[in-house]
Amino acid sequence: MKTAIIGTGLIGRAWAISFARAGNAVRLWDAEPSALPAALDFIRIVLPDLEKNDLLNGASPDEVLSRIRGVPDLSEALADVDYVQENTPENIDIKRKVFADLDRHAPPSAILASSTSALLPSQFLEHVSGRGRCLVCHPINPPYLIPAAEVVPSPWTLQGTVDRAAEFLRSCGQAPLVMKREIDGFIMNRLQGALLEEAFRLVADGYAGVEDVDIGIRDGLALRWSFMGPFETIDLNAPGGVRDYAERYQQIYSRLFPSMQRRVDWTGSVMNAVEEERSKRLERDKLAERQMWRDRRLMSLLAHKTKADREIGS
Amino acid sequence: MKTAIIGTGLIGRAWAISFARAGNAVRLWDAEPSALPAALDFIRIVLPDLEKNDLLNGASPDEVLSRIRGVPDLSEALADVDYVQENTPENIDIKRKVFADLDRHAPPSAILASSTSALLPSQFLEHVSGRGRCLVCHPINPPYLIPAAEVVPSPWTLQGTVDRAAEFLRSCGQAPLVMKREIDGFIMNRLQGALLEEAFRLVADGYAGVEDVDIGIRDGLALRWSFMGPFETIDLNAPGGVRDYAERYQQIYSRLFPSMQRRVDWTGSVMNAVEEERSKRLERDKLAERQMWRDRRLMSLLAHKTKADREIGS
Repeated sequence: MKTAIIGTGLIGRAWAISFARAGNAVRLWDAEPSALPAALDFIRIVLPDLEKNDLLNGASPDEVLSRIRGVPDLSEALADVDYVQENTPENIDIKRKVFADLDRHAPPSAILASSTSALLPSQFLEHVSGRGRCLVCHPINPPYLIPAAEVVPSPWTLQGTVDRAAEFLRSCGQAPLVMKREIDGFIMNRLQGALLEEAFRLVADGYAGVEDVDIGIRDGLALRWSFMGPFETIDLNAPGGVRDYAERYQQIYSRLFPSMQRRVDWTGSVMNAVEEERSKRLERDKLAERQMWRDRRLMSLLAHKTKADREIGS
Repeated sequence: MKTAIIGTGLIGRAWAISFARAGNAVRLWDAEPSALPAALDFIRIVLPDLEKNDLLNGASPDEVLSRIRGVPDLSEALADVDYVQENTPENIDIKRKVFADLDRHAPPSAILASSTSALLPSQFLEHVSGRGRCLVCHPINPPYLIPAAEVVPSPWTLQGTVDRAAEFLRSCGQAPLVMKREIDGFIMNRLQGALLEEAFRLVADGYAGVEDVDIGIRDGLALRWSFMGPFETIDLNAPGGVRDYAERYQQIYSRLFPSMQRRVDWTGSVMNAVEEERSKRLERDKLAERQMWRDRRLMSLLAHKTKADREIGS
């Protein structure tokens, strides 16, 4: 497939790696032409690490890099493309203008996808004449390390667009979550928000420390979640499956919900406690170093999961 | 350490494995003496699997088994013990009576810990004369595969009891979350409940399918959570750390919370959709087989994490 990346910041350049390692041609375009060499430099640095962890589908870094090309002219970047991934700032007016441009220059058969996490597709697609082929494909960054990506239709998106976008993402090794209709926060940020809100509340109300919450997820709940998800987890946690689980335990959970109503200001006094505890565990000038550790752990976890899928089953 | 397991159902027998493989002597006691051989049979079956995954601290299954002994008499089971783990039914009256018995028979220096998940320690410990040495140590089952365990003091638990219980659990390879005071659901079930409630709501309201939610966690959020936890995850997701993250993104999350207020009946009509989708992915007569798959994946994940901790850092 021929793909174009519109906007080559953190998200755009990461998508470029995902698309190119799957064998697609990738054209990079940015409103600021000087951004293109910076994006290509980043990609050049990341590819050897991915190769070391067997995350380039057997290709060499040079092969993958040869599929990616910076193109300063928008109409040239969009000529003959099959799939466009937009990654411009989270601003309704910018997205509206960009999608009008994409719709004008890209061939009518091309899918036009936005990486937005903060906007609903209906907020910027209504007046795009080819809105039937437009939608949101929202990654968790970086998509070359985290497979999940949300596919979110606007009210005008054609079913064929949704299906083709999901199929393309799958062909790139991503794991699409296909939403039936849009809602603020999509799926992943809603689940994360619900969990974080309760985590902040437990710390704010003096029940637990920051590290205790992290242990409960890292050495507890997320172990099973990392290869099953929460629904399969409860499906296997009662003799009769998920219905049996809900019938046995809903009552216990229901007692908890009233005390989960109070909102906590994450930037209020609880943040002093959170930041103090995090600073003790990680000096504030070591954040970038720790991010590199995180990405190495992610690569290693993905290699483990691929092996376990093959040897034990998925 | 000399330990006693009071009640040898699923949780009790699982604790026995965790304690014994760490080198502790374990006495099993159950109100129903015929339960003891069944528990020992279960342990005998599990140990070789753990050995294969290098989860017995280098000991053989026979060595570990030799540390575990069924004892039909309660006072004999408790003579000279250092640590008692209670696993009787989730019933206040039963727990009250059992803890009075434990307090009477165990040496005054012994810690008395309950595995309860549904009761608060204050609900059954108030009238125990040695209540200062009593607390809750709540595992995720099975504790020999999932390190996290909640340490929950009652209002009367001495700090020394909390510290010693946490230290003992650490010596068994568990990862204790030490609560500062009790709250219904402790930490892990509150976090799980918050996430599940939003998951059920997304399915009930027609935004997402069951499998889409599972993908979002399994191939998305839980990858990082499984080695960092949610607080460290957001600490690394903004250039200036966790405070920067909250300042940048709280506004986006705040917009989501009002639509998270509506309660969903998990056993209501949404359950038809959930069960139908789960049944398509896993026939209802294959649940037990899939549980065995889950435990093999858990063992394999633990082996991976131990290796990654060593090679990449924890």
